[in-house]
Amino acid sequence: MSNLYEQAGVSIDAGQEAVNLIKTAVSATHGPEVLAGVGAFGGLFSLSERLAGFSQPTLVASTDGVGTKVKLAAQAGRYGGIGHDIVNHCLNDILCAGEGVQPLLFLDYIASSQLVPAMVAEVVTGIAEACRGIGCALLGGETAEMPGVYQPNEFDLVGTIVGLVDSGRLYPRPDLKAGDVLLGLPSNGPHTNGYSLIRTIFANTPLEREFEGIGPLGEALLRPHRPYLEPLTRLRQAGLPLKGLAHITGGGLVENVPRVLAGFEGLTVRLDRSKWPLPPLFQLIQAQGGVSDSEIARVFNMGVGMVLFIDRQAAPAVLSTLGEGWVIGEVVEGTEMEIGD
Amino acid sequence: MSNLYEQAGVSIDAGQEAVNLIKTAVSATHGPEVLAGVGAFGGLFSLSERLAGFSQPTLVASTDGVGTKVKLAAQAGRYGGIGHDIVNHCLNDILCAGEGVQPLLFLDYIASSQLVPAMVAEVVTGIAEACRGIGCALLGGETAEMPGVYQPNEFDLVGTIVGLVDSGRLYPRPDLKAGDVLLGLPSNGPHTNGYSLIRTIFANTPLEREFEGIGPLGEALLRPHRPYLEPLTRLRQAGLPLKGLAHITGGGLVENVPRVLAGFEGLTVRLDRSKWPLPPLFQLIQAQGGVSDSEIARVFNMGVGMVLFIDRQAAPAVLSTLGEGWVIGEVVEGTEMEIGD
Repeated sequence: MSNLYEQAGVSIDAGQEAVNLIKTAVSATHGPEVLAGVGAFGGLFSLSERLAGFSQPTLVASTDGVGTKVKLAAQAGRYGGIGHDIVNHCLNDILCAGEGVQPLLFLDYIASSQLVPAMVAEVVTGIAEACRGIGCALLGGETAEMPGVYQPNEFDLVGTIVGLVDSGRLYPRPDLKAGDVLLGLPSNGPHTNGYSLIRTIFANTPLEREFEGIGPLGEALLRPHRPYLEPLTRLRQAGLPLKGLAHITGGGLVENVPRVLAGFEGLTVRLDRSKWPLPPLFQLIQAQGGVSDSEIARVFNMGVGMVLFIDRQAAPAVLSTLGEGWVIGEVVEGTEMEIGD
Repeated sequence: MSNLYEQAGVSIDAGQEAVNLIKTAVSATHGPEVLAGVGAFGGLFSLSERLAGFSQPTLVASTDGVGTKVKLAAQAGRYGGIGHDIVNHCLNDILCAGEGVQPLLFLDYIASSQLVPAMVAEVVTGIAEACRGIGCALLGGETAEMPGVYQPNEFDLVGTIVGLVDSGRLYPRPDLKAGDVLLGLPSNGPHTNGYSLIRTIFANTPLEREFEGIGPLGEALLRPHRPYLEPLTRLRQAGLPLKGLAHITGGGLVENVPRVLAGFEGLTVRLDRSKWPLPPLFQLIQAQGGVSDSEIARVFNMGVGMVLFIDRQAAPAVLSTLGEGWVIGEVVEGTEMEIGD
């Protein structure tokens, strides 16, 4: 993180407090496998201990941004949640690779027209908190000040996660078949998708305004992307295997659920929209924006952040182990995805 | 790369040709260890074969941007080189971690006010070419269109590299000592540092203008960051070990060379500036910008892109194996870095 420290500190000496805050937060994510102090040009993460239990160890990696949720965060002056957003978005993506994905390390990039140390510290401590929550090392990062590239007071945030998975346990499992059910796990808001539309719809609505069943608008909209490692680990420990997993991001359920079936010709999914409640925030977005049912379903997660493909027989045990979620559809024979009301 | 394809393709149908170009270029970086077709939510890279020969396998990772060189590329409308820049910058950083660093995988992020498919294709094919050149898989990527965050027609480019190194062979080696020499390998230009200053100095100079010993200015300034994997591999194959390695980036020789000595109390370096020639481009930058000797030395690599710490006895063999480079200084006892003219 040397560049981060230096650059965040260079512009304003008063930023030293922010820099110390970052150092403490980052160090707290480092277990013994982070070989600190050496390799300042690149972060070092020892695999020796972690490879045990993997017969065909495979790295799974993903890079992502959080879209224009950064603009909303800048507007509200609240940066900590956006750190959680980037980590959890990346995490959920790699979880879909297979059973027992183990997040190892994370790297971040923060760029802006002008870097304010306190803002960088807020973002990075948010990132570090989220990394700690999932047992992942915040191994490196970079900051950049580019006034001619970024709009005044705007910033972008990019994250990269690397995890370990056994290539013998990749999703989708080969025994996935018609009759398997789709179990939806609740999202806690729009996560990190649809924010360009959200900002248009609420352009003239103060972020402090309270809505029934939602609370202050800004808080609801900036709630960090939910991480799904914990419930998935719980299922694994209970011996309840999944057959596939879809992280619901841009494109919504409509585009992300069928991705799991890419290798299964003749199989598709049927979703039943009456099986889970549309959360009040999405109702508000739809009403205030006059967004059609089909458009909103392609932009937002509609209250379902992750979809689990499971054997029909296992559904009751999975639901009771999770203590949340809904059977929202099933795998069927066919080529066109079906959506029932 | 699914998001990249989709998003680059979505905005303009005519971009299909660009998308095909990207697909071909990206696939060309994939060896058998890339488990393609599965894990669309995250790229998969099998470690099984690669772990052979590593007794204490350790991941080494780095995230970086290329600074405001992106502005110059946008101004010139030449995007391919910038793809090489980001890969080679990241590569050179992780090479400094230890002996025999093996680059494994790379992920990229391209964001702009508006994505032009042909521009994205040029950047990504540049990235893919550079990855191929160093035997690294371009495993994933993301694009983002954020008009309210980026200035019109501007873009940012972020890369993350992950490599493998043996933690028993990390730099600096414990036998590093006073009397060891510093061998400088030539850079081929400013690489990816000092571009804010460069753009100020040449704000009113046409990029097509030719300078003696330099050629067209734009071409010289946009020449891609040189990768150092090949010469370092050659030294390793010749059985000529290094004791430490410094990639000369922002901060120049003055800040980057001493980083290698962080764990060696009482040791510093003496550099002798008469030992290597200041390339014409840096002479021009200094003359045209009226930049002081001390400032230019902190911003630019001054013609030296990588510094190798080696045993004095080995210097002649190393130089003859490399066929380039200069002994530019030595490790000495002391606390303050010395620079002789």
